Amino acid sequence: MKALETLICQLIDEQALSRSTLVYRVFDALLVLVGIGSAVAATQPDLPPFVAAGCLYAIAAIWGWFVLDYLARVWVAPANRDLKDRTLWQIRLEWIQSRNGVIDLGSVLPLAVGLVFAAWTPSGAPLLAVFWISRFARYTTGLDMLWRVLARERQPVLGVFLIFVLVMLLAAVLAYHTERLVQPERFGSLSMALWWAVTTLTTTGYGDSVPTTPFGRLLAGFVMICGITVFGLLAGILATGFSNELRRRDFLRNWDLVAQVPFLHDVGPGTIADLANMLRPREVPARTVLARRGQPGDCMYFIVQGEVEALVKPKPHLMGPGQFFGEIALLTGGPRTATVVTITQCRLLVLDIADFRAIAASRPELLEVIQGEADRRLGIGGLAQPKETLHE
Amino acid sequence: MKALETLICQLIDEQALSRSTLVYRVFDALLVLVGIGSAVAATQPDLPPFVAAGCLYAIAAIWGWFVLDYLARVWVAPANRDLKDRTLWQIRLEWIQSRNGVIDLGSVLPLAVGLVFAAWTPSGAPLLAVFWISRFARYTTGLDMLWRVLARERQPVLGVFLIFVLVMLLAAVLAYHTERLVQPERFGSLSMALWWAVTTLTTTGYGDSVPTTPFGRLLAGFVMICGITVFGLLAGILATGFSNELRRRDFLRNWDLVAQVPFLHDVGPGTIADLANMLRPREVPARTVLARRGQPGDCMYFIVQGEVEALVKPKPHLMGPGQFFGEIALLTGGPRTATVVTITQCRLLVLDIADFRAIAASRPELLEVIQGEADRRLGIGGLAQPKETLHE
Amino acid sequence: MKALETLICQLIDEQALSRSTLVYRVFDALLVLVGIGSAVAATQPDLPPFVAAGCLYAIAAIWGWFVLDYLARVWVAPANRDLKDRTLWQIRLEWIQSRNGVIDLGSVLPLAVGLVFAAWTPSGAPLLAVFWISRFARYTTGLDMLWRVLARERQPVLGVFLIFVLVMLLAAVLAYHTERLVQPERFGSLSMALWWAVTTLTTTGYGDSVPTTPFGRLLAGFVMICGITVFGLLAGILATGFSNELRRRDFLRNWDLVAQVPFLHDVGPGTIADLANMLRPREVPARTVLARRGQPGDCMYFIVQGEVEALVKPKPHLMGPGQFFGEIALLTGGPRTATVVTITQCRLLVLDIADFRAIAASRPELLEVIQGEADRRLGIGGLAQPKETLHE
Amino acid sequence: MKALETLICQLIDEQALSRSTLVYRVFDALLVLVGIGSAVAATQPDLPPFVAAGCLYAIAAIWGWFVLDYLARVWVAPANRDLKDRTLWQIRLEWIQSRNGVIDLGSVLPLAVGLVFAAWTPSGAPLLAVFWISRFARYTTGLDMLWRVLARERQPVLGVFLIFVLVMLLAAVLAYHTERLVQPERFGSLSMALWWAVTTLTTTGYGDSVPTTPFGRLLAGFVMICGITVFGLLAGILATGFSNELRRRDFLRNWDLVAQVPFLHDVGPGTIADLANMLRPREVPARTVLARRGQPGDCMYFIVQGEVEALVKPKPHLMGPGQFFGEIALLTGGPRTATVVTITQCRLLVLDIADFRAIAASRPELLEVIQGEADRRLGIGGLAQPKETLHE
Repeated sequence: MKALETLICQLIDEQALSRSTLVYRVFDALLVLVGIGSAVAATQPDLPPFVAAGCLYAIAAIWGWFVLDYLARVWVAPANRDLKDRTLWQIRLEWIQSRNGVIDLGSVLPLAVGLVFAAWTPSGAPLLAVFWISRFARYTTGLDMLWRVLARERQPVLGVFLIFVLVMLLAAVLAYHTERLVQPERFGSLSMALWWAVTTLTTTGYGDSVPTTPFGRLLAGFVMICGITVFGLLAGILATGFSNELRRRDFLRNWDLVAQVPFLHDVGPGTIADLANMLRPREVPARTVLARRGQPGDCMYFIVQGEVEALVKPKPHLMGPGQFFGEIALLTGGPRTATVVTITQCRLLVLDIADFRAIAASRPELLEVIQGEADRRLGIGGLAQPKETLHE
Repeated sequence: MKALETLICQLIDEQALSRSTLVYRVFDALLVLVGIGSAVAATQPDLPPFVAAGCLYAIAAIWGWFVLDYLARVWVAPANRDLKDRTLWQIRLEWIQSRNGVIDLGSVLPLAVGLVFAAWTPSGAPLLAVFWISRFARYTTGLDMLWRVLARERQPVLGVFLIFVLVMLLAAVLAYHTERLVQPERFGSLSMALWWAVTTLTTTGYGDSVPTTPFGRLLAGFVMICGITVFGLLAGILATGFSNELRRRDFLRNWDLVAQVPFLHDVGPGTIADLANMLRPREVPARTVLARRGQPGDCMYFIVQGEVEALVKPKPHLMGPGQFFGEIALLTGGPRTATVVTITQCRLLVLDIADFRAIAASRPELLEVIQGEADRRLGIGGLAQPKETLHE
Repeated sequence: MKALETLICQLIDEQALSRSTLVYRVFDALLVLVGIGSAVAATQPDLPPFVAAGCLYAIAAIWGWFVLDYLARVWVAPANRDLKDRTLWQIRLEWIQSRNGVIDLGSVLPLAVGLVFAAWTPSGAPLLAVFWISRFARYTTGLDMLWRVLARERQPVLGVFLIFVLVMLLAAVLAYHTERLVQPERFGSLSMALWWAVTTLTTTGYGDSVPTTPFGRLLAGFVMICGITVFGLLAGILATGFSNELRRRDFLRNWDLVAQVPFLHDVGPGTIADLANMLRPREVPARTVLARRGQPGDCMYFIVQGEVEALVKPKPHLMGPGQFFGEIALLTGGPRTATVVTITQCRLLVLDIADFRAIAASRPELLEVIQGEADRRLGIGGLAQPKETLHE
Repeated sequence: MKALETLICQLIDEQALSRSTLVYRVFDALLVLVGIGSAVAATQPDLPPFVAAGCLYAIAAIWGWFVLDYLARVWVAPANRDLKDRTLWQIRLEWIQSRNGVIDLGSVLPLAVGLVFAAWTPSGAPLLAVFWISRFARYTTGLDMLWRVLARERQPVLGVFLIFVLVMLLAAVLAYHTERLVQPERFGSLSMALWWAVTTLTTTGYGDSVPTTPFGRLLAGFVMICGITVFGLLAGILATGFSNELRRRDFLRNWDLVAQVPFLHDVGPGTIADLANMLRPREVPARTVLARRGQPGDCMYFIVQGEVEALVKPKPHLMGPGQFFGEIALLTGGPRTATVVTITQCRLLVLDIADFRAIAASRPELLEVIQGEADRRLGIGGLAQPKETLHE
C-alpha cells in the first residue's frame, strides 16, 4: 500500500522533473489528444459503425483513466506534506479545492453529468471531452498571469468594450436605416444589422451581408477603422498590464530563491532587491554540462538546490547550495576556465552577463565579494588563466 | 420631503458602496438592457402586433423612468455638498454640466426629440434607445483614461491615419486602373475601388470585390501587409500612451490617499513619492476578512477610511484611519499572526509584498518605522510568533 | 511688393498660430478635400457630361492654386530668416529641398507631368490629385516620428517580414500540392496558391479561394495562427520603438525650451534633465484663461514666449518670458488663488501636479526655489490664502 | 590557390562592408529571387514548353551555384581565423554547424533530396526552391532576437494559445449543436464546426461557413471578440518581451565596443554602464561626411575602428580608434565647427544629443573629460567659435 502510494507519487508529482514523471505527463497529454480526436471523429457523418463505436469506447476508456487519476491524486495528496495539526482528509480537501484539483475535477465531471442525463450519443456526451484540453493548464503558469493582468486592467478593458458596444449599436442603427430599403433580406431588422456590425467591427468580414449604398459603405469604412483602433487600444492596455505583472512575478520568485543563497546575506538589501530583479531561475537535470572549458561564458550561476562539480585539476571541485560559479569568465571577459557539470538535479539562479556588468557597476560591494571569491579560486585551482579585473 | 431626498440619495449616491445603491445600479443596468432588447425586437419583421406594441410600451416606460431618474438626480445634487456661497440651483446647474449629468441627459434627450418629430414608429424613435448604453459609462473610469491617451498621442495617431488614407487612395487609383478593364462592375469607378481598398487595408476582406489580375493581386497583398503594419503602429503608439497615463493616474490618486495616513507624515517626501507609485487602493464592504491567522500573507494595508478589528487575545484590537496592519507576515516571511475583519465599510491602501521588499531595501527609514510598530504589537499582543527581521 | 510679401507671410507662416494663418490652413485643407472628391466623382460612370466637366475644371483650378501657393512659398522663403552670408536664392533653394518644400512640389508635379503626357481624361491625370492628401503631412509631426521608429527597429521588422514571407511560401507550396487535385481552378498554380496564402496570413480572408481538403484546412488554421502571431510581433516591436522615440523627442524639445527660462539656470543640470523629461509644451492664443480663482489647480506653468496677467488686487500682475505661475495651488493643495489670462499668444511649459510632486520629492532645491517665489508672491499679493508647505 | 582563397574571402566575408562583398550579396539575393520566381512560373498552366524548360534550367543552374557557394564557404572557413590547437577540418566542421552553415545547407539539401527521389517535375522538386528564401536570414539579426523573445515569453504565449484552443473547441461544439439542424452541409460534423471556429476566432472570416441561427450569431460575435482579445494579449506579451530583449542586446554590444575606446578607461564603471545603454553603433564606408561645418550637430562619435579626418586649418587633423569628435557642437549648442570625413571604413559609436545631455547631467566626471578635450581642441584648432559651457 505504501509502495503503491510512493509509486503514484513518483508518477504525478507536480514539481518534479524526474524521468518517470515526465513520461507520465506525456502519456496524460496523449490521452487528452486522442480523446479529443475521438470526439471529433465520432461526429463525422457516414462513419462505419464499428469506427464510431471505437471512438465512443476510446472516450469512455480515457474518461475512466482520468477518474482513476483524479482519485489517486486525492489519495496521495497528503504525501510529502507537513501535516501540522490537520487530518489526512483535511489536506485532501485542500487539494480538491486547489487550482489543479478544480481543473482535474472539471475535466471528469461534465462527462459524468452527461452520462446521468443519458446524452451518451455520438453528438452528445463525448463532446464534453473537449473540456479535457483544460488539463494542459496544469503545465503552464501563463494562464494565471493572464488572469491577473485582465483583473488588474479591468477598468480600461471594460472601457474599451463599452466603446466597442457603443460603436456597434450606432453602426447597426445607421446601417438599418440606410440599407433596409435596398436589401431588406440582409438589413431588414436591427438584429440583422447588428450581425453585420459585429462582423465588420471585428474586421472578420464574412461577406454574407455587405452594404451597397454609398452612405452604407462610408459607414462600413468608418466602422472598420474603429475596429482596428479598438484592437490597438486593447493591445496597448494589455501590453502595459503584462509588463507590470511580469516584473512583479519575477521579483517575488527571485527574492525567495536569493534568500536561500547564504553567500548573499552579507550584501545590503538594496543589492538583493536589484539582484532579484535580474536573476532568472533555471531547473537542470543531473549530468548536464553548464560550462565548457575554453568556450566563451555569458552568465554566472548561483546554486539553490543540488550539487555541481567543476572539473579542475588536481581533483574535481564539488559545489553545493549557496555557492556560485562561472564568475571568472565574466570578470576576465575570457573563456571558461573549467568545465562544470551537474551531479544531481539542480535549481540554479542565472545572472546574465549584461546584468552582471550593470550590477557590478552600480553595486561595487557585490563585485568585491565575487572578485574575492574568484581570486581565491584562481589561486587554489592553479589555473593558467591570469587574474584580471573587470576594467583592464 | 427631506426623507424622500435622503432615500433618493441613498439609492443614487455615485460614490457609495451600500447595498441599496448597488441594487439600484443593477436595476438601472437591467432597464438599459431590456430597453435595448426591446428596440432590437421591435424591428423584427413578421412580429405579432401585440409583441411589437409591448416593445414600444416597454421603451416608453423605461424612458419615463430615466426622465424621472434624471430629474431626481438634478433635485438631490446639492445634498451632501458644501454650499459655500453658491445657491442650490447653481450647484444643480454644475451637476447638469458635469460628466455624469451630460451622460444622463444624453440618454433621455434623443428620444424626447424623436417624439417631437413624430418618429414614434418601430423603425423610428425607439432606435434612439441604443444611446442608453452610454449610461454604463457612469460606472467605469476607463473611458476617461482612453480619451486622455488618445488626446495625448494625437500627433502620431493622426500620422498613422494619414498613412492609412494615403495608402488607401494610392491603392484605389492603382486598382481602378488595372482591374477596371477586367471587371468593370466591381472596379468601374474610383469610389468602387476605394471600397475595395478600405475593406482590404483593414483586413476585413468581405470578398464582394476581389482583384483577379496578377498585378491587382500583388497590389492587394501589399495593401494587406500595409494594413497589419498600420495595426502594429497604432497598437504600439497606444500602448506607450496608455502606460504613461496609467502611471500618472495611480500616482495622483495614491498621493492624495497617502496624505490622509498621519503615520506617514514623518517619512521624507521621497519615500512618500515612492509609496504613491506602489500602493493600490481597495474598497471593501463591512465584515470582510482581510487576513486569516495561519495563512500566508502577501500584502499589508493602510487604513484611509473606516475601522477594522484584529482578532487577537486577550481582546480584539480596533484600528482606525491612519493605522496599518498585516506588516508582521511581510517582515517575518511567516503566516498571518491574527485574523483581521472590517467593522465598517473601509477604504484601504494595499502594499504588495513585492513592492514592500523593494521599498524596504531602498528606504530603510520606512522599514524602521514599520518594524518598530510591529515589535510593539508583537510585545503587546503576546503572540507566540518569534520576532524576526527581514533578512535573517 | 513688400506689402504683398508681408501678407503672404502672414497667411502661410508655418510656425504661427494667428487667425489669418489658421483660416488659410482650413482653406488649404478644404481645397485638398474638394479636389480629391472631384477626382473620385469624375470617374463615376453615367455621370452627366456637365458634372464631369465641372469636376475636371475644379481639379484644374485647385491645381492652379497649389502651383501659385508653391511659387509664393518659394518667393517668401527668405522673409524672417537670418541671411548670414547666403543669397536670397540660396535660401529659396534650401526651402525647396526642405521637407515641406518636397511635399508641396510632390503635390503639384504629378499633375503637371500628367498634362504633358496628354493624360487629361476623367480616368487619367485627375487621379494624380490623390497625391494632394500628402499636403496634410505639413501639419503633423507624427509622420517623422513613425519614420524614425521604423528606421530604428529596421532589423527586427525585417526579421518579421522574412518570417511572413517564409510562412507564406511554405503554405503556398503545401496548399498547391494538396488542393490542386480537388479544385484546380483555385489552386492550379503556385501563384494562385500564393494569393490564397497572403489573404489567409494577413487574416483578410476574401473567401474567393478556400481550402476544402482536411489537410488544407489544418494548414489554413495554422497559417491564420501564424498571421496573428506576426501581428503580435510587429505590434510589440513597434510599441517598444515608439516608446523610446517619444521619450527622446520630448526630452530634446523640452531641454531647448527649459534653456529659455532664466529662472532655472540656478538649479543643477540633473534637475534640468529631470524637468525636461516631465514638462509638456503648450501653445495658447491670446486672451485664454489658464487658471480661474477658486478652482482646483492641477498644473503649473513656465512662460517661454508671450505675456500673461494674474488678476490679483490691488492691480493685475504682468508676467513675461522666464517666469512661472500656478505653483501656489500645487504647493498648498488648495484652489487657485488668482485668475490668470494670456495677454498675447504664449508658448508655455506645463508641469503636471503628479510630476511636480515627484520632482519636489527628489529635488528639494527646486522645491525651495519655487517655494521662495510663492512666499514672496503671497506676501506681495496680500491674498487671504494662508501660506502652507507641501507636507503639512 | 591561395589567391583564389583570398578572392573568395573578399566576396563572402560575412562581417565586411567592402564593395565586392556588397556586390556579391546583391547577386546572391537576386539569384534567390529569380529562383523563386522561376519555381512559381514553372507551375503556371498553359505555359509554352520552352518557357517551362527554361524555368527548370534556371532553377538547376542557381541550385548548382548555391552548391558551389556552400563548398567554397566550407573551404575558406579557416581563413582569417585563429587556429589555436584545432585542425583545418575541425574549424570547417564548426562553421558547418554554425547558424549560417545550417542555413546554407538547408537551402541546398532539400533540392538534392528531391533529385534523388525523382521529383524533378514542374510541380515537384523546384518547389523546394522556396526554401532559398531562408538565405536572407544571413543578413538580419532580427530573427535571432525574435526567437529569443518567443523562448523567454514561452509560458504566457503558451497560455494564450491554450485559451485560443479552448475557446475554439467550445465554440465548435456549441456551433455544431445549434447550426447542424439548419445547415447540415456546413456544420454537419465537429470538424466542419472547428473549421468555422478557427476562421472566426482569427477574424479571417472566409465566409464559406456562416452561422444563420440567432444563437449561432451571438456565439460568433462572442468568438470574434475573444479573437481580438487574444490578439491583444499576444501583442502585449511580445511587446514586453521584445522591449527587454532589445535593451539587453544593445547593452551587451555597446559594452564590448566601449571597452575598445581607451579614452573611457578613466571614468568609473557606473558611467560606462550608463554609456553602454545609450550608445548606438554605426558602420560607415570610407569617404563619408559625418559632420559638415556650419550645420547643426545632433550627436557625437567615438571611433572604434578606422580613421577620420577633421578638415580644420591650418592642416587636417587625423583621428583614429579610441578618439572622439563632434562634442563641440553638443557642448556649445552651436553649429559644427569643422567638417569631418572618414578616411577608411569605420566602426563608430554614436551618442545622441538627448542622451549626451542626460548623461552630462548625471555624470559630471564624463562631462569634465569631454569638456577638457574640447577646450584643448578649440585652442589648437584656432577656431573663431567662442568657448562656452553647457549651461550658459
